[in-house]
Amino acid sequence: MVQRRANMRRIPESTIRRLPAYLRVLENQKETRTTSVALGERTGYSSEQVRKDLAYFGAFGTRGVGYDVSQLGHQIRHILGLDKNVKAVLVGAGHLGTALLRYTQSGVSDVQFAAVLDNSPQVVGSAIGSMVVEDIQHLESIVTERKIRLAVLTVPAEAAEKVAERLAEAGIGAILNFAPSPILTDQDRVLVQNLDLTLELQAMAYFVTEHDDLESPVS
Amino acid sequence: MVQRRANMRRIPESTIRRLPAYLRVLENQKETRTTSVALGERTGYSSEQVRKDLAYFGAFGTRGVGYDVSQLGHQIRHILGLDKNVKAVLVGAGHLGTALLRYTQSGVSDVQFAAVLDNSPQVVGSAIGSMVVEDIQHLESIVTERKIRLAVLTVPAEAAEKVAERLAEAGIGAILNFAPSPILTDQDRVLVQNLDLTLELQAMAYFVTEHDDLESPVS
Repeated sequence: MVQRRANMRRIPESTIRRLPAYLRVLENQKETRTTSVALGERTGYSSEQVRKDLAYFGAFGTRGVGYDVSQLGHQIRHILGLDKNVKAVLVGAGHLGTALLRYTQSGVSDVQFAAVLDNSPQVVGSAIGSMVVEDIQHLESIVTERKIRLAVLTVPAEAAEKVAERLAEAGIGAILNFAPSPILTDQDRVLVQNLDLTLELQAMAYFVTEHDDLESPVS
Repeated sequence: MVQRRANMRRIPESTIRRLPAYLRVLENQKETRTTSVALGERTGYSSEQVRKDLAYFGAFGTRGVGYDVSQLGHQIRHILGLDKNVKAVLVGAGHLGTALLRYTQSGVSDVQFAAVLDNSPQVVGSAIGSMVVEDIQHLESIVTERKIRLAVLTVPAEAAEKVAERLAEAGIGAILNFAPSPILTDQDRVLVQNLDLTLELQAMAYFVTEHDDLESPVS
């Protein structure tokens, strides 16, 4: 669902999107070595998939010996840029925004929120964990001064496009959009991933519904 | 990321996952006819992708005339099973669970939550919008009696696998798992989609990081 930029990178996007899952397993395990079979079992992917993904950045396991857990973890963190202290801004301090912020504060993510913005006078100034919600009016100066490169949008649908425009203008490189409305901002300026939770839910309905009438071609 | 069942269906999963986005556009538009170009523009997919997706279930637009908005909407709702009143249970009434519930209550989703469960005595009995949180102890009887087929998991990581087992045992057909730990339950019994928001965030970090050292093959 990530919209592509003109300059495609060498590692496929689908591989990039699986790397954090491997990383989580590596960081939670006590053994010093692991295998593609073990990584596959703990992430739900096939061992072939794991081997293929890791080979993209030169991490080749040794047959019968596998991968060095610490080294592979470092490599994945480097590939993802998680060793570069990526800073993010959260726009929209409602229930979803608060949930995301608490997840990252609990230490399960390496991306750190450097600012939380909202436009409601009732919310601006209040605390979420260790952070204080700031006024969205100051979006541009906050993004620039704190060198923020990533944005997470948890605003209402009608506000998403306009906020995305402001973020792109301020120099944000990528937006993860949870608003129930896709952002269609110019993709050469900013990378957008639209992740609409209610659409995910609707798609799941398909898999619990009988579809006998679809087995033969419809015309 | 949806794990596959043994009996594959005819329509690709990637197509199924785009259908709700098309449906949202169709339901929000006033015109009676639309085109693959217009649907593409409003969802962020290419017009070729739209045409290919819709052709899977026999919805062929007419050149110069396009698609009938109302008819196409009905077809997509039928394909997804949204005309069959799919009932879901939400397990975990924290911030994320509350956000999801409010989204669906605001009418942007056709999947209706028939129950919200939690294990905390502080939360059980409290109201979220029009729903009252019930005790997870009664999971099995609630799922059976209310004929619930779909589950959304917003519980802590350490609880996810055990709750998923109980849901599968109770007859749930599909689980959308937001817990920051993948569910590895037997895929022949229940379809699982793991959607870990912090991992999505980590993957985004890659796209705002410079990767000059990856441009040449690493070995």
